[in-house]
Amino acid sequence: MQFHHHGYVSGDPRVRPAAATGIDRPTDLPDEVDVLVVGSGPAGMLLAAQMSQFPTVTTRVIEKRDGRLVLGQADGIQPRSVETFQAFGFAGAIMAEAYNIGWMNFWGPDPDNPQNIIRTSRTADYAYDISEFPHLIVNQARVLDYFAAAAAGGPGRIVPDYGVEFVGLTVHDDGEYPVEVRVRYTAGDRAGQERTIRAAYVVGADGARSGVRDAIGRVHVGGVSLHAWGVMDVVVNTDFPDWRIKCAINAEAGNILHIPREGGYLSRMYIDLGEVAEDDEHRVRQTPIEEIIRRANEILRPYSIDVKDVAWHSVYEVGHRVTDGFDDVAEGSDRAPHVFLTGDACHTHSAKAGQGMNVSMQDGFNLGWKLGSVLTGRSPESLLATYSAERRPVAQQLIDFDREWSSLMARKPEEISDAGDLATYYLATAEFPSGFMTQYAGSALTGTDEHQQLAAGFPLGKRLKSAPVTFVADGNVVHLGHHARADGRWRIYAFADAAPVGADSALAAWATWMQSAPESPLHRHTPAGGDIDAVFDIKVVYQQSFDEIDMTTVPELFRPQTGPLAVTDWEKVFAAGASRWNDMDIFAEREISRDGAVVVVRPDQYVAAILPLSATAELADYFARHLLPA
Amino acid sequence: MQFHHHGYVSGDPRVRPAAATGIDRPTDLPDEVDVLVVGSGPAGMLLAAQMSQFPTVTTRVIEKRDGRLVLGQADGIQPRSVETFQAFGFAGAIMAEAYNIGWMNFWGPDPDNPQNIIRTSRTADYAYDISEFPHLIVNQARVLDYFAAAAAGGPGRIVPDYGVEFVGLTVHDDGEYPVEVRVRYTAGDRAGQERTIRAAYVVGADGARSGVRDAIGRVHVGGVSLHAWGVMDVVVNTDFPDWRIKCAINAEAGNILHIPREGGYLSRMYIDLGEVAEDDEHRVRQTPIEEIIRRANEILRPYSIDVKDVAWHSVYEVGHRVTDGFDDVAEGSDRAPHVFLTGDACHTHSAKAGQGMNVSMQDGFNLGWKLGSVLTGRSPESLLATYSAERRPVAQQLIDFDREWSSLMARKPEEISDAGDLATYYLATAEFPSGFMTQYAGSALTGTDEHQQLAAGFPLGKRLKSAPVTFVADGNVVHLGHHARADGRWRIYAFADAAPVGADSALAAWATWMQSAPESPLHRHTPAGGDIDAVFDIKVVYQQSFDEIDMTTVPELFRPQTGPLAVTDWEKVFAAGASRWNDMDIFAEREISRDGAVVVVRPDQYVAAILPLSATAELADYFARHLLPA
Repeated sequence: MQFHHHGYVSGDPRVRPAAATGIDRPTDLPDEVDVLVVGSGPAGMLLAAQMSQFPTVTTRVIEKRDGRLVLGQADGIQPRSVETFQAFGFAGAIMAEAYNIGWMNFWGPDPDNPQNIIRTSRTADYAYDISEFPHLIVNQARVLDYFAAAAAGGPGRIVPDYGVEFVGLTVHDDGEYPVEVRVRYTAGDRAGQERTIRAAYVVGADGARSGVRDAIGRVHVGGVSLHAWGVMDVVVNTDFPDWRIKCAINAEAGNILHIPREGGYLSRMYIDLGEVAEDDEHRVRQTPIEEIIRRANEILRPYSIDVKDVAWHSVYEVGHRVTDGFDDVAEGSDRAPHVFLTGDACHTHSAKAGQGMNVSMQDGFNLGWKLGSVLTGRSPESLLATYSAERRPVAQQLIDFDREWSSLMARKPEEISDAGDLATYYLATAEFPSGFMTQYAGSALTGTDEHQQLAAGFPLGKRLKSAPVTFVADGNVVHLGHHARADGRWRIYAFADAAPVGADSALAAWATWMQSAPESPLHRHTPAGGDIDAVFDIKVVYQQSFDEIDMTTVPELFRPQTGPLAVTDWEKVFAAGASRWNDMDIFAEREISRDGAVVVVRPDQYVAAILPLSATAELADYFARHLLPA
Repeated sequence: MQFHHHGYVSGDPRVRPAAATGIDRPTDLPDEVDVLVVGSGPAGMLLAAQMSQFPTVTTRVIEKRDGRLVLGQADGIQPRSVETFQAFGFAGAIMAEAYNIGWMNFWGPDPDNPQNIIRTSRTADYAYDISEFPHLIVNQARVLDYFAAAAAGGPGRIVPDYGVEFVGLTVHDDGEYPVEVRVRYTAGDRAGQERTIRAAYVVGADGARSGVRDAIGRVHVGGVSLHAWGVMDVVVNTDFPDWRIKCAINAEAGNILHIPREGGYLSRMYIDLGEVAEDDEHRVRQTPIEEIIRRANEILRPYSIDVKDVAWHSVYEVGHRVTDGFDDVAEGSDRAPHVFLTGDACHTHSAKAGQGMNVSMQDGFNLGWKLGSVLTGRSPESLLATYSAERRPVAQQLIDFDREWSSLMARKPEEISDAGDLATYYLATAEFPSGFMTQYAGSALTGTDEHQQLAAGFPLGKRLKSAPVTFVADGNVVHLGHHARADGRWRIYAFADAAPVGADSALAAWATWMQSAPESPLHRHTPAGGDIDAVFDIKVVYQQSFDEIDMTTVPELFRPQTGPLAVTDWEKVFAAGASRWNDMDIFAEREISRDGAVVVVRPDQYVAAILPLSATAELADYFARHLLPA
């Protein structure tokens, strides 16, 4: 965490100085806004936190509820989401209050007494094999609280406009604010009043029954199955020994997915209520909690639960739907989109794979920096078309995965030939539910894989998988990726060739070109008068040990003087060589060429380009595809 | 973190429900208080956070300043303090914003050109060899902020009474509130007005010029040396390569102790201003900042600093003082104390060893639970005499250490025969500046060392050194000691013998006795009607692996049903056996007998008694020495 370089900070350094629209931000919704986000769920609140990093952009978030969410339904947090929280500054805080999924146990019928269940296997959770972050369970309401704090503490000082409902919108052909949005106050003095607001861009983050989706004529395609589940968050006393371990229970009497919750007592149970009749017409949703508990006890036999408190419960039929487009641009049109759909507004599915909130947040992360880049003049409006292009395939992949997982979970014991296949599927697909299977295809944003072998451990289009390195300035071991904050900037990691630091080398030549050449992206795309690292955060990783490197011989490119005091930034120079607290060499671990490599990472942490140190023209070309001259 | 067992918690689980005096706590200072803390520095604010865990006790903290501290002078945080922060729930948060001292480098005259300095050695900081927590640098103001949040979020909802100054006190012989305290408002509508408050106990946490100390006639013994230092917190540009590493610089031109600060830019420099004349009469304190910077540049030669911002600076002569008693009880008297001195009010010394704030906090930690225990009727008033008995020797040890360290730091190069001896001293004494040399002597609180060999790695009288273990309930690896919160409770760790869990064993017999015997401390000292773990938090550590243990066969003692819902606590049962993420066996690591042992740990984390599982009568006797029948 870097601070004090704009003057001494006495209070919480997580709260950044207000800037631009964040200074004297009006409490009332203005008539004209750059970005209007409809809905304050996971996608909407991530957007609030992200747009707060672009304080020159006027962003408002409307929410029909009159205040903070009290009880969220989603609770599963993928390692990829924790990685995202790290970028927003709250991974540590939320981990400390979450349940950490270490294991998943599987239960099935006891062969000697098939009406009873027995534990058939234990499986270590996949998270730690895939990421340095765990797989968590924490209430969605808390996730939103943390994003709200990041939004309010960012330079844009964004707080949601509670008690304002979306009514409808019309996209006009021209003007700076082409989207006319009708809203209604639902709370406070003006409750019931309607208003019209003009926006440059509107984001529908308004859930499965999205009004924004309807307003742009998009259709939620798919349907509801005839299989019902009860779900409850309960505090119990029980003789079931795995109450605090995630379990898939497959009994003769039905199925349970059991997920311990944060706080050490509460657990969530998804309880199979079986097939429903074709003419049921959702009557199953009236199933009383007593019946759900009775079913749970039937499935758990010979164990039982004595429910002491029900925090929440519901009944639903599994549905799978994807919207036919994630923005308001008709197929074949090449105009830029002005309305976007995120989260449940464009993909809905069962809750049991613990995916929904996570994919929604990544929708927001994908869209936020693009809006910021366009609205600050860094990128052409055409960049915005990549949102739908990148996120629709992810949503489809999600639905396919969830459909398979849901049906595996809903099988009867006699349909199961191999008792271990659920566990096998769980592990084999681990990367997907962890959030790491997203791989953006080649586009203006994702370079070609011509030089992939220079950094084989950073697959193009996938998120940068971090590894520990050592800060040269202070000898502390840090995770390289954890220094990529969600600040809308591009990261360029220069992995050095093996030459001694300070000597002539491919790295030194690259640094000189980057710093001095008029065609360098640093010069072409960084606005004059601001910090030299305003758009590009350029870091170097040397192959040597930190104590073999003299900071004063490192190229100045990696020691920029920034801020109003123009003081040296010491935190852009890393060492891969072994040190007292780190024996992992990122070059070996991520298969980076000893001749060096340049790895470009997008503001949302996806690997965008991999190039040799010598490929300066290609690097300039890459950025020219989606960044404008400053 | 455990919650949801008193009903669903929607918001921040760190904020506990208000209770007793925390409900409708009056904003104005009452006429009668149980505990009046004078001063809101490190000792005072730790006390606020600690007393907030005893909500039936009325505690107020007066502070003459009209608000939060803006700029603190202390910044060094020992691993022992981070351990303490963990108990108060904010270690992770403060670590994320602090500077982590990984290394200490030593610089001396270049033999070829003695007017220049060269790096003579690098030394890895000792912290990680001693503790799982690091050695940090973070502004005292932030430490106080975190304690303030813990105090305000605890059941007692304690917030300091800012703008109220201590004037004087008189201790009377009788009554429930024997201390008559005169205070004056320094801010707000009543500024200038005086009032009298009656208190059961008063804590002087009012710094080196303590009015409370003077009021009880205690004398600060010691003096000021004739050696002056300048100190400054600065943001600079520099060619000195170790700007972000802690350094001891010993040049011909003088000495510098250089300590990087949090945030990546700021550093603190202690700059040797040399001997002062006997008749100087503190004129050296007028040394201008320009002169301090000039001296620094002289010492740093051939390097230099270009100062861009001075956050704070000062000049002082090293002083060493200890007060002749830490409470108001005259030597030879056996009445209980009613006034206590903590922190700088009873020990002052140089800042350079980074000790002051740390020792002050431990003063508060030592005193807080004792006041709570007496004021909730758990312990006799005689317990309070142990505060001075335990803390005075620690203060004397501190002064002796600091005097040695200060004079080593102030040597001229020609006085140094062995260039490595400062580094050697630094490492050899590492346990002291880390905060782990405190070892309370035998007393009513510290048992005999007769059975020390049953747990040789937990020295009696020292703080419990934690180690990783596995939660049986969920298979997650946790640090045993991190589950000891600063909640005023006693921890009893039952380390099991090797028998299978659920079989007859020494552990099972001990658990039965503890739970059922009328003479068990659990029955004798736990108030009726409350939770069974209200006074004693009893945990078990088995030798097996977590997956060899069936939670439902663990003695009920370790699975108590607590809270208004009377639900099972799953977090008191640990496994030492190897698991996927932990290959450290706490039995081996801490030399615990395979026949088992009972380790009693005080509310402030010090090891108080070690006994065999069979020594039930001795355990009962131990607690009867300082706990009353409930």
